[in-house]
Amino acid sequence: MSAPFRVVGKPIRRFDALSKAVGATVFADDYKMPGMLHGKVLRSPYPSARIVRIDPSRARALPGVVCVLTAADIGYAKMIADIPGQTGQRERPRSETPVLAWDRVRYKGEAVALVAAETEEIAERALELIDVEYEPLPGVFDPLEALKPGAPVVFEPDNVVARWRIRKGDIEAGFAAADLIIENTYRVPFVEHAYLEPEAGVAWVDERGVINIRVSTQVMEHFRTVARTLGIPQNRVRIQGAFAGGGFGGKEDITVEVFLALLALHTRRPVRLVYTREESILAHSKRHPYIMRYRTGVKRNGRITALQVELIADSGAYPYLSPYVSLYSTVVAAGPYRIDNVWVDTVAVATNNPFTSAFRGFGGPQPCFAYERQMDEIARALGLDPLEVRRVNYLRTGDTTATGQVIHSAALLEESARRALEALGERTPDRGPIKVGQGFASYMQPYGRLMWLHDTSQAWVGLELDGTVVIRCGAPDPGGGQLSSLCQIASEVLGVPMENVVAYTPDTALTPLAGTTTATRQLYMSGNAVLQAATAIRRTLLDRASKYFEEDPEDLDLADGRVFVKHDPDRSMPLPDLVRICAAEGLPLSHLAMFKAPFRDPIDPETGQGDVFPDFTFGAFAVEVAVDTETGQVEVLKSVACHDVGRAINPAAVIGQIQGGSYQGLGYALMENLIVENGEIKTPSLSEYLIPTSVDYPTTQVILLESGTGVGPFGAKGIGEPALTPVAPAVVNAIVDAIGVPINEIPVTPERVLKALGKPTVTS
Amino acid sequence: MSAPFRVVGKPIRRFDALSKAVGATVFADDYKMPGMLHGKVLRSPYPSARIVRIDPSRARALPGVVCVLTAADIGYAKMIADIPGQTGQRERPRSETPVLAWDRVRYKGEAVALVAAETEEIAERALELIDVEYEPLPGVFDPLEALKPGAPVVFEPDNVVARWRIRKGDIEAGFAAADLIIENTYRVPFVEHAYLEPEAGVAWVDERGVINIRVSTQVMEHFRTVARTLGIPQNRVRIQGAFAGGGFGGKEDITVEVFLALLALHTRRPVRLVYTREESILAHSKRHPYIMRYRTGVKRNGRITALQVELIADSGAYPYLSPYVSLYSTVVAAGPYRIDNVWVDTVAVATNNPFTSAFRGFGGPQPCFAYERQMDEIARALGLDPLEVRRVNYLRTGDTTATGQVIHSAALLEESARRALEALGERTPDRGPIKVGQGFASYMQPYGRLMWLHDTSQAWVGLELDGTVVIRCGAPDPGGGQLSSLCQIASEVLGVPMENVVAYTPDTALTPLAGTTTATRQLYMSGNAVLQAATAIRRTLLDRASKYFEEDPEDLDLADGRVFVKHDPDRSMPLPDLVRICAAEGLPLSHLAMFKAPFRDPIDPETGQGDVFPDFTFGAFAVEVAVDTETGQVEVLKSVACHDVGRAINPAAVIGQIQGGSYQGLGYALMENLIVENGEIKTPSLSEYLIPTSVDYPTTQVILLESGTGVGPFGAKGIGEPALTPVAPAVVNAIVDAIGVPINEIPVTPERVLKALGKPTVTS
Repeated sequence: MSAPFRVVGKPIRRFDALSKAVGATVFADDYKMPGMLHGKVLRSPYPSARIVRIDPSRARALPGVVCVLTAADIGYAKMIADIPGQTGQRERPRSETPVLAWDRVRYKGEAVALVAAETEEIAERALELIDVEYEPLPGVFDPLEALKPGAPVVFEPDNVVARWRIRKGDIEAGFAAADLIIENTYRVPFVEHAYLEPEAGVAWVDERGVINIRVSTQVMEHFRTVARTLGIPQNRVRIQGAFAGGGFGGKEDITVEVFLALLALHTRRPVRLVYTREESILAHSKRHPYIMRYRTGVKRNGRITALQVELIADSGAYPYLSPYVSLYSTVVAAGPYRIDNVWVDTVAVATNNPFTSAFRGFGGPQPCFAYERQMDEIARALGLDPLEVRRVNYLRTGDTTATGQVIHSAALLEESARRALEALGERTPDRGPIKVGQGFASYMQPYGRLMWLHDTSQAWVGLELDGTVVIRCGAPDPGGGQLSSLCQIASEVLGVPMENVVAYTPDTALTPLAGTTTATRQLYMSGNAVLQAATAIRRTLLDRASKYFEEDPEDLDLADGRVFVKHDPDRSMPLPDLVRICAAEGLPLSHLAMFKAPFRDPIDPETGQGDVFPDFTFGAFAVEVAVDTETGQVEVLKSVACHDVGRAINPAAVIGQIQGGSYQGLGYALMENLIVENGEIKTPSLSEYLIPTSVDYPTTQVILLESGTGVGPFGAKGIGEPALTPVAPAVVNAIVDAIGVPINEIPVTPERVLKALGKPTVTS
Repeated sequence: MSAPFRVVGKPIRRFDALSKAVGATVFADDYKMPGMLHGKVLRSPYPSARIVRIDPSRARALPGVVCVLTAADIGYAKMIADIPGQTGQRERPRSETPVLAWDRVRYKGEAVALVAAETEEIAERALELIDVEYEPLPGVFDPLEALKPGAPVVFEPDNVVARWRIRKGDIEAGFAAADLIIENTYRVPFVEHAYLEPEAGVAWVDERGVINIRVSTQVMEHFRTVARTLGIPQNRVRIQGAFAGGGFGGKEDITVEVFLALLALHTRRPVRLVYTREESILAHSKRHPYIMRYRTGVKRNGRITALQVELIADSGAYPYLSPYVSLYSTVVAAGPYRIDNVWVDTVAVATNNPFTSAFRGFGGPQPCFAYERQMDEIARALGLDPLEVRRVNYLRTGDTTATGQVIHSAALLEESARRALEALGERTPDRGPIKVGQGFASYMQPYGRLMWLHDTSQAWVGLELDGTVVIRCGAPDPGGGQLSSLCQIASEVLGVPMENVVAYTPDTALTPLAGTTTATRQLYMSGNAVLQAATAIRRTLLDRASKYFEEDPEDLDLADGRVFVKHDPDRSMPLPDLVRICAAEGLPLSHLAMFKAPFRDPIDPETGQGDVFPDFTFGAFAVEVAVDTETGQVEVLKSVACHDVGRAINPAAVIGQIQGGSYQGLGYALMENLIVENGEIKTPSLSEYLIPTSVDYPTTQVILLESGTGVGPFGAKGIGEPALTPVAPAVVNAIVDAIGVPINEIPVTPERVLKALGKPTVTS
């Protein structure tokens, strides 16, 4: 299969679009079963406390309450969360979390008891009747404090959840060779995923004794975690995927699965558990706040001679994926730049704050804010054009990253930045106190998983006797259109019209495992698995047709539901006829394929040197803002995203991902701010925690570059996470361009603008 | 894998046993969905009539009625039923049936309109409000009448649905060589399947636009028929299997599937359709009544020199599977005997009676009644022992059947008859008017499909990371324990304890197609598919373990969840550890296998010569009865079934099949009689149509022979249908033995006994 493509590259309407538009999609929350109970979770009101006593007896006595579970009732079970979906890799950091707290709570919102009742109202009332006596304990709420000797211990022995380092080149010599050293500290906040659909699911025990959990998730493989946590065989837990109303990493960790499994097992009835919005904000993971100290040595022409970085991440009360998120940050901390001398120290620190874990970008956006703000500060200090400073440092194909990994794909950094800036156009003039600025940011963001995790994805593609196609692939689709892209790949390879391809929702019992919809890996991994499976069937079809037409298989092609002779297209046969011939001879028209990502040994823990990711996506975001220097208000006038996506399988979906990522990035830059004080979320609902609405910012213009050099199907790269990564630094660079003074912390609220301008602010 | 086996051959409790015992199984009827409508079918009150007018307007106006469909609303759709599940074979007999009648009805109970309403009661009421004007037409109710010129035409052009013939040897010469010619006509009745669970299902259109049909069926592949009938792509119809409360062939044809699909499509809501018992008796298929003329030439020692057979089957109003059923009858018409000169003429004839189709034995039990009664009549005429007459004629391995097929497996005919008779023991003495008789019958019954149908079965077996196993196989389990036997095979091959194996219910979208649970084919076909898949995984495991232990793979074994060195079992490793090693290296621990039955060209239509089936099961049934010569009552005193099952994978399930088949056969012999007069069923409910209850007959003693020579896994043969085949002739032979006068028609009701004895009877 090679260009020109017939289906790949065409913008198509996702097959889930209509059902979502008309409200017919059965989300996890919509699934109703006869006799279904309603679950609720009792949560700690304290960020740090000893549990003196839990007495569920009054709750159990309430009519309509079917089950109340405390830690004692579930054997003090702990959940051991791996990097999900992975198979057999060596020992690695683990996160162990009590399913229900018994001796101590470590964050406000931690689960203490579960209830299942005939109605939601009774379940709510039962929560109030569970008597829990707490003895508040001192907490620690700042990662810098948590690292000090004598700080309250949240995570044994010293609150250090993970440390990573990069030691490349000679950092002393690098700084010695510099003409100038620029040093800044950058800060980014907690961020809430704020997906449309809160955590939700329904569970029941079926007639085989298998616990079924139909849930909104990015990770089908959590059936293993549920089984391990409950101490039952893995083949007795089945996760059924539902279309999800967003995930963004917040549904990468276990959410309701274990609670649902426990309640279904104990009641032997279907149980539904849906978090309220407030519960979702209180109790699920957040994006890590980071403190990032950047010290850069540069020559007068902007060439970087040395980079020293310190990253401090607040992991909250439990590790979850903090070890991996902080590793990602470490790997990309130097940005998409050739730097010979790099020194990075990263630490993820436990506190009594809400726990932090995966969020679109997975540790990429935080350092991008720092390294791209830093590039502009270097440009300002040297009096150079920001693009010129970057240009002399940009990674090119064949260069090595900070961890020593060679870039094999195209690295269209300069082209993407130039194209984005060109499209941004001439600067709009200032109007009195309203100052206009332009800024941009480049980035590198991996797609696919750490190569030592032995990532695999499986897909099962089959032809029906009428020439229609069914794809079975355990890839969750949290809204990115992943399954539609898989259909497009099969459609291309098998020459079957898109409307004749159906892809089934993942279900661990019945679809082959395809790994998580995280790490921007699904198009790359499952796309390649579908490509493999469809190609195997294509080969069977063309081999058989070759006998019929007495032509070489290479001289035949499949398109529009027909097989035909390339040099004489009138010699053709409808695909269903060929399918029936093959079926009659027992030729396999169904193929189960496994795609394996390349494998590398883990990086050296002392130096951080090694190959880490299969490949990286590169691109740029440019934006023009108008800053009202009297009110501090920032208006986004125009924005342009330019990414090398390798190959746009479905340009409509790619543009959707980029515009969505841009919008989420604009919110990150300007608006979204989960305020946590002494472990308490001060923005507990969407009335206080603001996210952009559709009228807040103009739609981002998207420019797609297609180098065709990615490791995904047909040369595709990943775009899900990269779309967000460069947005915040570009926005702040534009603001700094407008007002002429640096701002090194997001979100850039009006207060922060006024403060930067040295103007008085009113803090509510 | 070879004996001794660790798991195969052990009686195990089926994994569905507990849930069935406690009522937790979710049968098709039990599945409830929110917003579900209730469907009903309007049926013709006439066996033969012209439809003048259908007016659904009053029904549509009834509040709560959501949809009324007549033929006009569904484009006068016809259902083209193939032999289900087959792929790509050549042109063959087809059955075309109107989904809803529009111009004419051909049997009483034929569907005329469909209703979906908010409640069952409203749907019932709506049926009454559909105005249909009929003009009764003359009908034909006897196949002999239907064959006469000028008879009303039910099936164009001459009511002949199928004709088959066997021409082997020289029939004239054969009769000329005979010392004696015995000629008799045998008759068997319509029989009702009378499964516990009537036809039932629920359908809905999902968010992909796929019609899901969760249904009690023996045939997942009917999704193709539904798609063809509705004119939609095959990948848009999904059949989800449910555990079925019996099938016995009655759920081989489409039952509620097309009706449900139409109602779900037209209403876009879930729809449930469950037949009442009376509707089930009225409207689904029956076992074919046959008239069977047998003319046998024999030598004085009992050796058969010629056999001429005429079989006349009543196919009812539509062909359905009659062409195939009558072919089966033709192939086995000569019984398990070496006969050089055979002449068989079979005709299946359309009438205005209830339609007939598959029923356990599929055309085998009817001729078995004839050929085994005939053997006893030959023995009586020659004054020989019935076993001796059979012994000189029994087929042996290497002999050819009437169609010229060589028997390759063991044919333990004499041994099974002898063992059954020995176990039956000495004859109980008569007591006054109560006369005791003993009888037996031998049989041959194929397992697996006609070899020109290119039968295949697929299974997908996978190991989880904790060493537990999941089997996905689209084999419906209508109650025979098919899925548990598949688990046992995987358990044996992979050395995983049975409790760590789960098998998933078939679902056309998500489990590989395994063909129908009919033709006694599932253990043979899907058992072999599971064996292939598990063996592939076993090879992967042992190859990898061979490197670890530095031993040849042949010197390693898997058992009890461990891999070990055969000659040094202390050198072992838990299976989960081996699994994780393999998974880490990306070795496939999941395998999708396809088993293909051997292929042969169709038999010659002129001579019936050719290989027809993959293999045959042989065995015998012996029974002792006490006949009250005053009342005509027959009591079964003892019965013994002895079958060569090749290999009893799960003896508990095999014995269950045999005892169930025996009981069903006893009912066939003595009790079950669907009386049809002028196209009207006079036994319309289970109050009139009697089936045996658990107190009517003693439990059959079962003797299992295991020749290990079958073509199923580990040498298994099939037993589902064979279990029933010899029962009725054995019983009647025993009755004739008791009373000394022949009876050539079943069921042998007290009236028939008295009539045979020349005594007066009272006909109700």
